[in-house]
Amino acid sequence: MASESGKLWGGRFVGAVDPIMEKFNSSITYDQHLWEVDVQGSKAYSRGLQKAGILTKTEMDQILQGLDKVAEEWAQGTFKLSPNDEDIHTANERRLKELIGETAGKLHTGRSRNDQVVTDLRLWMRQNCSTLSALLRELIRTMVDRAEAERDILFPGYTHLQRAQPIRWSHWILSHAVALTRDSERLLEVQKRINVLPLGSGAIAGNPLGVDRELLRAELNFGAITLNSMDATSERDFVAEFLFWASLCMTHLSRMAEDLILYGTKEFNLVQLSDAYSTGSSLMPQKKNPDSLELIRSKAGRVFGREDKEAVFEVSNTMSAVIQVATGVISTLQIHHENMARALSPDMLATDLAYYLVRKGMPFRQAHEASGKAVFMAETKGVALNQLSLQELQTISPLFSGDVSHVWDYGHSVEQYAALGGTARSSVDWQIGQVRALLGAQQA
Amino acid sequence: MASESGKLWGGRFVGAVDPIMEKFNSSITYDQHLWEVDVQGSKAYSRGLQKAGILTKTEMDQILQGLDKVAEEWAQGTFKLSPNDEDIHTANERRLKELIGETAGKLHTGRSRNDQVVTDLRLWMRQNCSTLSALLRELIRTMVDRAEAERDILFPGYTHLQRAQPIRWSHWILSHAVALTRDSERLLEVQKRINVLPLGSGAIAGNPLGVDRELLRAELNFGAITLNSMDATSERDFVAEFLFWASLCMTHLSRMAEDLILYGTKEFNLVQLSDAYSTGSSLMPQKKNPDSLELIRSKAGRVFGREDKEAVFEVSNTMSAVIQVATGVISTLQIHHENMARALSPDMLATDLAYYLVRKGMPFRQAHEASGKAVFMAETKGVALNQLSLQELQTISPLFSGDVSHVWDYGHSVEQYAALGGTARSSVDWQIGQVRALLGAQQA
Amino acid sequence: MASESGKLWGGRFVGAVDPIMEKFNSSITYDQHLWEVDVQGSKAYSRGLQKAGILTKTEMDQILQGLDKVAEEWAQGTFKLSPNDEDIHTANERRLKELIGETAGKLHTGRSRNDQVVTDLRLWMRQNCSTLSALLRELIRTMVDRAEAERDILFPGYTHLQRAQPIRWSHWILSHAVALTRDSERLLEVQKRINVLPLGSGAIAGNPLGVDRELLRAELNFGAITLNSMDATSERDFVAEFLFWASLCMTHLSRMAEDLILYGTKEFNLVQLSDAYSTGSSLMPQKKNPDSLELIRSKAGRVFGREDKEAVFEVSNTMSAVIQVATGVISTLQIHHENMARALSPDMLATDLAYYLVRKGMPFRQAHEASGKAVFMAETKGVALNQLSLQELQTISPLFSGDVSHVWDYGHSVEQYAALGGTARSSVDWQIGQVRALLGAQQA
Amino acid sequence: MASESGKLWGGRFVGAVDPIMEKFNSSITYDQHLWEVDVQGSKAYSRGLQKAGILTKTEMDQILQGLDKVAEEWAQGTFKLSPNDEDIHTANERRLKELIGETAGKLHTGRSRNDQVVTDLRLWMRQNCSTLSALLRELIRTMVDRAEAERDILFPGYTHLQRAQPIRWSHWILSHAVALTRDSERLLEVQKRINVLPLGSGAIAGNPLGVDRELLRAELNFGAITLNSMDATSERDFVAEFLFWASLCMTHLSRMAEDLILYGTKEFNLVQLSDAYSTGSSLMPQKKNPDSLELIRSKAGRVFGREDKEAVFEVSNTMSAVIQVATGVISTLQIHHENMARALSPDMLATDLAYYLVRKGMPFRQAHEASGKAVFMAETKGVALNQLSLQELQTISPLFSGDVSHVWDYGHSVEQYAALGGTARSSVDWQIGQVRALLGAQQA
Repeated sequence: MASESGKLWGGRFVGAVDPIMEKFNSSITYDQHLWEVDVQGSKAYSRGLQKAGILTKTEMDQILQGLDKVAEEWAQGTFKLSPNDEDIHTANERRLKELIGETAGKLHTGRSRNDQVVTDLRLWMRQNCSTLSALLRELIRTMVDRAEAERDILFPGYTHLQRAQPIRWSHWILSHAVALTRDSERLLEVQKRINVLPLGSGAIAGNPLGVDRELLRAELNFGAITLNSMDATSERDFVAEFLFWASLCMTHLSRMAEDLILYGTKEFNLVQLSDAYSTGSSLMPQKKNPDSLELIRSKAGRVFGREDKEAVFEVSNTMSAVIQVATGVISTLQIHHENMARALSPDMLATDLAYYLVRKGMPFRQAHEASGKAVFMAETKGVALNQLSLQELQTISPLFSGDVSHVWDYGHSVEQYAALGGTARSSVDWQIGQVRALLGAQQA
Repeated sequence: MASESGKLWGGRFVGAVDPIMEKFNSSITYDQHLWEVDVQGSKAYSRGLQKAGILTKTEMDQILQGLDKVAEEWAQGTFKLSPNDEDIHTANERRLKELIGETAGKLHTGRSRNDQVVTDLRLWMRQNCSTLSALLRELIRTMVDRAEAERDILFPGYTHLQRAQPIRWSHWILSHAVALTRDSERLLEVQKRINVLPLGSGAIAGNPLGVDRELLRAELNFGAITLNSMDATSERDFVAEFLFWASLCMTHLSRMAEDLILYGTKEFNLVQLSDAYSTGSSLMPQKKNPDSLELIRSKAGRVFGREDKEAVFEVSNTMSAVIQVATGVISTLQIHHENMARALSPDMLATDLAYYLVRKGMPFRQAHEASGKAVFMAETKGVALNQLSLQELQTISPLFSGDVSHVWDYGHSVEQYAALGGTARSSVDWQIGQVRALLGAQQA
Repeated sequence: MASESGKLWGGRFVGAVDPIMEKFNSSITYDQHLWEVDVQGSKAYSRGLQKAGILTKTEMDQILQGLDKVAEEWAQGTFKLSPNDEDIHTANERRLKELIGETAGKLHTGRSRNDQVVTDLRLWMRQNCSTLSALLRELIRTMVDRAEAERDILFPGYTHLQRAQPIRWSHWILSHAVALTRDSERLLEVQKRINVLPLGSGAIAGNPLGVDRELLRAELNFGAITLNSMDATSERDFVAEFLFWASLCMTHLSRMAEDLILYGTKEFNLVQLSDAYSTGSSLMPQKKNPDSLELIRSKAGRVFGREDKEAVFEVSNTMSAVIQVATGVISTLQIHHENMARALSPDMLATDLAYYLVRKGMPFRQAHEASGKAVFMAETKGVALNQLSLQELQTISPLFSGDVSHVWDYGHSVEQYAALGGTARSSVDWQIGQVRALLGAQQA
Repeated sequence: MASESGKLWGGRFVGAVDPIMEKFNSSITYDQHLWEVDVQGSKAYSRGLQKAGILTKTEMDQILQGLDKVAEEWAQGTFKLSPNDEDIHTANERRLKELIGETAGKLHTGRSRNDQVVTDLRLWMRQNCSTLSALLRELIRTMVDRAEAERDILFPGYTHLQRAQPIRWSHWILSHAVALTRDSERLLEVQKRINVLPLGSGAIAGNPLGVDRELLRAELNFGAITLNSMDATSERDFVAEFLFWASLCMTHLSRMAEDLILYGTKEFNLVQLSDAYSTGSSLMPQKKNPDSLELIRSKAGRVFGREDKEAVFEVSNTMSAVIQVATGVISTLQIHHENMARALSPDMLATDLAYYLVRKGMPFRQAHEASGKAVFMAETKGVALNQLSLQELQTISPLFSGDVSHVWDYGHSVEQYAALGGTARSSVDWQIGQVRALLGAQQA
């Protein structure tokens, strides 16, 4: 009968195991990253087995020395993969057996592949998150240092890409630094949940050999142990959390890059990217493209929506490069003070004009309308808002008097915004202090 | 010249404002949810304005009473929207002006729409996250209670949908409860970042009227204030975090639902859903579909990848319904003890058979192979694994002796898994205690 | 034993059916959109039942008249939903029974709910796709008309937001029109796959009553019938295809909006949005925000990644509004000719300068380098590229001679790009002709 | 002043170009796939340049021969990448120059990097889509062959994982084959839009050297040329379309895999996967996991939501492997006839019982209720539905008579579903014919 045989329906030939299937199933090309933590996890587990009486002291020592040798081969680049090594775990155990013989076969007692995979992954991610944390804090520190040095430079704050109000350049830097500080805080929370030991969970039911999971935890320096063996071997929440963290952090870096791309155009001309972060065009000789910023922006797309273990490796690398490039960009960026000053225009003080009337007692909604009328009057007359005469202003409201001239001072304008979080110098200083304090606390 | 006029290129007619554009721009249909927090935020802001000297005490009292009246109308369902109310904020201020006159126009002084929108959203989400937190803990508690009551029921643990090892039914329940406990922890972290006051940030530069943001914070009972006014009005990290939280939590509920759908099939027949959570087919009279479980699963798709404010309202409602339905399902689910027992089969003890040899000194890799041979021998002979005679087993390894018969006891099998996190009764009790302790801590 | 009762584990009380569950399961709030096609589908099916001998002629006529009455009530807004109407299909059949009695119970013979749902959805989407098709072609036509009228206006083509080469304004319009023309083509393909009749597939096995599916197809004017009943009732490829189409189309509209937002900034100042498509700020009196463009861009986010039936309704509405707003925007947009002309600068002709040398026989890579040197020389001297003297240029290459002055004419520059697809007038005319021909073909 | 220098704000040191930035910007590691099409595109372009008079015949021949040599080196694995080769395009041109000298510098005249990249990508994807098309049709053909051979085997059709109605095994196969046939059709449409020549678009304005794009099209065997040079170099709709196609196709393969995983469980036990597509467990000796099916399912996650050029290479490879593994799985799968037959149960004929009453004149809604009562009566009495006596049935409806016994024949049941698309043998044969006809047409 047809269905009992594989040959009748014309599918391509298959041998013992379909070779495409084998390649398909293999993860060795990307999980080599894990060699170091795999050895580390196995060393801890062999200590656990010894305490549980599964290994003698001698056997354990044999295994520990063998594993050290395996690690040495990886570190020196002399480890040779065999075609049957489907993942890093089988590769290392295969090599261990070559080095120390049958005792190697005792190492996996009571441990499942999932047990091992998830332990390795957590160890690797813990290490990488620490590195990313440090890089991210370095970026924030660079931004805060720069914000401190350039507190007195004013430029236009934009909303909807329209010039909105004069702000300090440092206020813009800090708006991005503050967002990254939240990322830094979130990364610590993710790390806390990564830093939990799953080893000792077996396939699903747990470990039946009385292995002391507290010993394993201490050996591998985890902060806690997983509560349920089924959950421990199958859950990847920490991967999803890390990838989400990366997405959000990339969103922030991407927005900063977008602003800088714009500020660097010929039309805005407020900042200039260092040559170290620009490239040319193969066709147009005059072009200097902000490729570093565009790459930061485009890499965001590659971080979003990844969901697998391979993603962890790739996203970690991307984040590391992106954060370092962003640090380089920020620390070498030139700003054009004069253009920044020139980009401020009196119509950006229309809100202040309304506040002037508010301070004279007019309800804000009416003051907003009155200021709007002044804007319209200036546009109609083809003059700048600050060039309307007092008489002209008084046709709009009798509350206008000589002191309205103070409104037209940009420095005076930003100094009004002294409520915490605003763009006044005192508030910018407060922000710098707050972010530095948070950085200090996060580092500790 | 053509380009100076809007009429020449055949587009459809447009008046002062394109009516499609107006509708497009309006958010009133979904942001009505915010009426209560909008009033709450405006009351706090008017106190801030009074302290800053923008409002007199009398004006403030007028506004406070007016806002109370607005809230009363919403609460009683008598608030009438006007066609020009493009969002809840304009609607409330429009009504306030009708009630108290021009003084209403002072309320918005120094505040931007963004300021107000994001404050309202944070207030609303804070309230809803508290509710979701409580519902989620109630679900976990129900699961833990049930796990405690049914600790002695064994059934097959599955991996890859294949019967893997005997485990306690409670172990399965706890594997899901532990995942949800992480969700509960994460929700608290999200709430912490939601609970930060943005009000007093203005459009972009900050608040220029010396409003005391600490007073606003205290009035609205926020835990902290935002650091930078540009960041405060534009960032929606807390929305992204909440939606991510919902996605992850739904993933967990969805997986639990998937297991239960499977366990409830005629083929598995391990559990039976209460009629309260099942529905029939319009065509097939015999069908009873696990619709509650399928809806939980399918709602997961609706939570993933949403990114906007509307999503917050919809996802909050979905989460609330889903968590409550899950609680109902778990608390009314019937389990079929006998079928659970019957579903255990000797081949699921093949791992234990290997451990038997390990305990007699054989390296695990060899023991795994020997046990595999026994499985193959049993299959070839067409008998269950525990029906192989001692002689037959001894052809595989001389280490087998009479005491191998102890291996075939499922109760004995699960009791081996006594390492923390395993399925032994002591470990299950430990898990129950741990989850209860976490719940207690999270509630506090 | 605890597990046999729903009361023991502390879950909330549940009656016959959990009311949250009921609400959860109900789709009537959003599938009301389907009332018309539901009646249409049922009328066709009753004709099928009559031909199959399940209904007498009299019964069929009764049902047809009853369904017409149901439709009339919906059309006139007098249809009253009952609390038990869980979806539009049960609502209509419930009402039919009230109107014509027990015969209504024959209508569903051999039809499953899935059968009916998917037929209704396809009918609804077919109708809506036709509308969207027409709106999209109207937008493209507006763009092409405008491109034709403004062929002689030059402005900077940007890459990486940097000024790259002079191009015709129409070339920019056409670059977006061409992308939308692909969307229009794709929509026709989606429609072709929507336009397939599933009715007559029953729950899963098919229709057992000999209903003539060819008759149903003809009645409902479908282009073909589904091939397999299991696939027919479960597949939603056409929904996924439609949502993907919407995502791609929104990407295009969003990019066009992004360009226009930028071109409309004070810094670029190349175009001006009609007041009908702008709005003000609640705080800053001078602001005029390009809200229509920002909404188009932000709506893109709401279209991506939706996957459910509700998404179809929402996304259809969004697309309809967005396309119409885009048509309005394009047909009323003012352009600033003088600014466009002023924005062209000699460095944008650096590529042309290289081509000048190429035409004199220099390999392009060398010419690119030589032109780059000229750019650098001009920058160093602080002059525009076209102000370098012939002698200066000749220090770079002896191939420069007096005719290099022709390079500095922008009109001459664009006319070089006469290969098909380029920005020369002849090529722009060709593009206009091509797009119009495609529109004509798509309309047919 | 601080902002003029890169050294003052503590960022890490940067040289001429930040080395991280350089690595970040390089795509050579993944775009090597393009070596062959890059040479192909350059050969065509050099012919275009010769016709346009930019190259002499001798120069063109030199370039053509040089490019052939480059290709030969790639094919033989002797091509040596240099550290400065940032992508495949610069690598090939660098090598060409080494081989033939300065003439190589003329090849890029009038061509931009974008021009070249997008042409290469389209050539590569065209080739790969052809391969995927052929593999997919091979899979469908295997499925249809199998469906034809096993038409007489009945088994339960499931909805909501509940046994619903008896269907033919072939009906299940065809439900998946039909879905894949749509994928095959869609792939042809994607290929049509891939198969359009962008070359000759330059950077943005077009090609200024009168290159004959029709000649380029013919040389590279494209079906059409792009209409607008700006759109041509920037649009990647065809990439998005391909990735969407892959997502949808993977969804279908993933659903088929999910069904087979379930049917292969001990509990369902309807099919058995070939050893060539299964793997064991490192811990549990008795396990045989359906890894091929699980990988198909999990690879789906890796296909969704990718958006970049790298994704194209990876997704193409994944699709190729997945389709081939699926073909292998289907062609070697064993089915358990007896278990399939045993899995059919009389309650699955409850719908037929309702139709029995319908045929006697009862409205379907009443018949559905009557059949439901019979199901309940049988459950209450603890007997199978077909064991109710005629007297018992007659207490439910007097329309039941002796001929009700015909209802209980599964073969008779499926034969009722003879409307097109149903599970009757005639309809299954029709489906087989239809799919084969479509395959034939798609191949042509």
